[in-house]
Amino acid sequence: MRIDLNSDVGESFGAWTMGHDELLLPAITSANIACGFHAGDPGVMRRTVRLARAHGVAVGAHPGFPDLAGFGRREIRCSRQEVEDLVLYQVGALAAVAHAEGVRLRHVKAHGALYNMACRDEALADAIARATAAIDRSLVLFGLPGSALLQAGRAQGLRVAAEGFADRAYNEDGSLVSRAVAGSVIHDETTVVARTVQMARHGTVATAAGSIVPLQIDTVCVHGDTPGSARLAAAIRQALEAEGVVVEALGRGPKL
Amino acid sequence: MRIDLNSDVGESFGAWTMGHDELLLPAITSANIACGFHAGDPGVMRRTVRLARAHGVAVGAHPGFPDLAGFGRREIRCSRQEVEDLVLYQVGALAAVAHAEGVRLRHVKAHGALYNMACRDEALADAIARATAAIDRSLVLFGLPGSALLQAGRAQGLRVAAEGFADRAYNEDGSLVSRAVAGSVIHDETTVVARTVQMARHGTVATAAGSIVPLQIDTVCVHGDTPGSARLAAAIRQALEAEGVVVEALGRGPKL
Amino acid sequence: MRIDLNSDVGESFGAWTMGHDELLLPAITSANIACGFHAGDPGVMRRTVRLARAHGVAVGAHPGFPDLAGFGRREIRCSRQEVEDLVLYQVGALAAVAHAEGVRLRHVKAHGALYNMACRDEALADAIARATAAIDRSLVLFGLPGSALLQAGRAQGLRVAAEGFADRAYNEDGSLVSRAVAGSVIHDETTVVARTVQMARHGTVATAAGSIVPLQIDTVCVHGDTPGSARLAAAIRQALEAEGVVVEALGRGPKL
Amino acid sequence: MRIDLNSDVGESFGAWTMGHDELLLPAITSANIACGFHAGDPGVMRRTVRLARAHGVAVGAHPGFPDLAGFGRREIRCSRQEVEDLVLYQVGALAAVAHAEGVRLRHVKAHGALYNMACRDEALADAIARATAAIDRSLVLFGLPGSALLQAGRAQGLRVAAEGFADRAYNEDGSLVSRAVAGSVIHDETTVVARTVQMARHGTVATAAGSIVPLQIDTVCVHGDTPGSARLAAAIRQALEAEGVVVEALGRGPKL
Repeated sequence: MRIDLNSDVGESFGAWTMGHDELLLPAITSANIACGFHAGDPGVMRRTVRLARAHGVAVGAHPGFPDLAGFGRREIRCSRQEVEDLVLYQVGALAAVAHAEGVRLRHVKAHGALYNMACRDEALADAIARATAAIDRSLVLFGLPGSALLQAGRAQGLRVAAEGFADRAYNEDGSLVSRAVAGSVIHDETTVVARTVQMARHGTVATAAGSIVPLQIDTVCVHGDTPGSARLAAAIRQALEAEGVVVEALGRGPKL
Repeated sequence: MRIDLNSDVGESFGAWTMGHDELLLPAITSANIACGFHAGDPGVMRRTVRLARAHGVAVGAHPGFPDLAGFGRREIRCSRQEVEDLVLYQVGALAAVAHAEGVRLRHVKAHGALYNMACRDEALADAIARATAAIDRSLVLFGLPGSALLQAGRAQGLRVAAEGFADRAYNEDGSLVSRAVAGSVIHDETTVVARTVQMARHGTVATAAGSIVPLQIDTVCVHGDTPGSARLAAAIRQALEAEGVVVEALGRGPKL
Repeated sequence: MRIDLNSDVGESFGAWTMGHDELLLPAITSANIACGFHAGDPGVMRRTVRLARAHGVAVGAHPGFPDLAGFGRREIRCSRQEVEDLVLYQVGALAAVAHAEGVRLRHVKAHGALYNMACRDEALADAIARATAAIDRSLVLFGLPGSALLQAGRAQGLRVAAEGFADRAYNEDGSLVSRAVAGSVIHDETTVVARTVQMARHGTVATAAGSIVPLQIDTVCVHGDTPGSARLAAAIRQALEAEGVVVEALGRGPKL
Repeated sequence: MRIDLNSDVGESFGAWTMGHDELLLPAITSANIACGFHAGDPGVMRRTVRLARAHGVAVGAHPGFPDLAGFGRREIRCSRQEVEDLVLYQVGALAAVAHAEGVRLRHVKAHGALYNMACRDEALADAIARATAAIDRSLVLFGLPGSALLQAGRAQGLRVAAEGFADRAYNEDGSLVSRAVAGSVIHDETTVVARTVQMARHGTVATAAGSIVPLQIDTVCVHGDTPGSARLAAAIRQALEAEGVVVEALGRGPKL
């Protein structure tokens, strides 16, 4: 039993800070670093790569729509080619920053609206997968289980990682309950920890309706934007390890 | 006798076009491609790389200040670290785009105000040289002859290229006459062609005051923003070759 | 019989030029000036206001999505409040520039994807109408005939103007044929001129299927982005006047 | 004895927050609201205007260089015309937002590098003064005592306000000690309070070298970016009022 714990980091921008990366990174195994389009800037990217390296955390790219004002959360109707190009640009920029710091990128996880759209839309999924493969075929592509994104990644010969969300409610079909629905985000820490352990150990999740459904995942996303998120991430990791689950990054390891 | 002919290309942005790259590229040997901060966008970058590749032109990065509205021509007082990071980011982004198109970057030429400032300012020169070296130690760094930029490039172990300007007037000390001075830009095509041949063949230039001074250069910049610039570039190349000068890109060749 | 001829102008940005405003403005009566989010910048805005004033053309605001790279043509899923605020900001900025040049804004026409979305979506239409009314209740709001945008404008007590398109094909229900469909844009100049006269004189349009349907409009949009557009606009105006149609701007006039 | 207490507010942007405006506003009398170029966005601007209105605080514009990544703190070499246009644009945008909330702008204070440059540079000072006057001649223009900015404001017929800084060290000539110098920012709260009272009551300040020099000011800037800044502002106001100083905004009042 193995699981990766990932989190979105490096989301500060210029004079504005966001998140508590220094506290969060010790608890996780994969860092999704913003690439300057929805958050992050060249200086923040470098400092975040250094911080991840210092904690032995795998560094990945977190490309998003070009929308600082909307933090990449607003859907933008881009063409397939536009998405391929903007992902290539952002991942390439972070790859150079990482290279300058002696680090190789391990994974790519699209951000916000781009992630959500690409999980559903084959053309956008294909665009992200192609851009990722063009940079480095050993990169792991993250996406929702059963999504167009994972399918496109496999079609490009990439290793893919199915992602679960520690604090989100699930529908009967294993999809996420929309954030527009009350109860879609779970705030009770004990519950969040227990659900994560269940995902990692049993490959199942309790749905909003109360049934248990399969959810095969390789990585769990823990959120880092609230003050308590670092403590929660640490609690999740501790519980996983106490249950015998190996918490480690994906990609490039001997067993992977 | 060898010389490189370089030009700034890929300066369109979104729906706006600039320059006549298709006409210019057949005449030059090194393309300085804008990287999205002062001009260019991910799609323009890809199309420009393809176009350069199709014409056998060496591809280089043309990073600038983050200033679309000012086209990178306005001085921005950035710290050494800020400049290093923004150059690393931009060159990395273009390197990824080039890699996706099967092309390796050959050189780096800073754009506009960043180029001018770094030619004078050791800290900024060092920042650009470090960012360039961090990406690929075989990249050629462009700068004015005798500038801080070339010195910083050498200090980083980079091959450097001293650059002349086909259509600019020169001072007695081999520096460029400021654009603020009348006559700083030479418009007569025959004169521009003759001056370029003189630079390439004899390593000298006629100053604004009328004397002949040494100007050892490896590459000549020809401008591509006016309708006649492609024709002028072709005339320059033809004249150089008629005089027995080998016109070819710098870097990675067997004799370099 | 009266009609307004409007065109999108002031779409240059920084060092990039677009359109042929100097040639186009003599032929039109209302200028929709870009406000810096999808095109235009503070300097371009001022120069365009001056040019419109010099030609006696009514000045209006042309606010768009914050998307320079996409020229405001990409749909961005913004909230009602976000749209109200970004329209208020842009129209206010142009109003100040116009005021500094001794000109009062006469109308507001949303740009590109924002226009198209607001013609269909009541919440976005309401947002644009509220922002417009908050600035000046005498502003005329442009929109497609029968659209949510015009309805929202009326609900805010604004005068509204139904807009026709000189060079676009129409469906049986008076809506525009999607640009994705072949033949949606009409290129033959004689046809474009004749259709405009028919709209203005008879309040009808020939559909793509060949029938004649009613199309009550107050203003006709002529495009200004191609070299021939100024000539076409002049031909349209000449034909209208030859047919006895008064070509004049909307708003603030004694009969309006 | 009267003094205005001003502070920079509305410096959040999109998903990023900065400052503690809700806590700070009850203590101050003039709010300098960022206008979207160095900080702030249309939504933040509206919410900040509302908050200022709710606290009876005078609303002013805080225009800066177009530099979100540098927070308007980096010098950008713009032309006089560029500065006039970008100030006009920003103040106009905020004026519209304020108007929509039933508030009239009372003052203009340039931000960061723009403020510092315009205090020294007559052309930039003139640009800011002209843009301010073009919008509304009753606006009060803020600047350092004896600066080019105040002089330019007076030349445009504007009322001007000389500004002191509660927590900054002063040179013998009444200028600010550069931030690059150790001790340029005073952190001890009791000292900051006492210095502000001295400025307001006696029109003097103790210099870094220990002498007392004249400093005639109309408004004092209190910083709002640290958690303790709201408490400090409240302590400053309380001390001023305890000493019989009337703390009130400038402009439009009957006695002004």
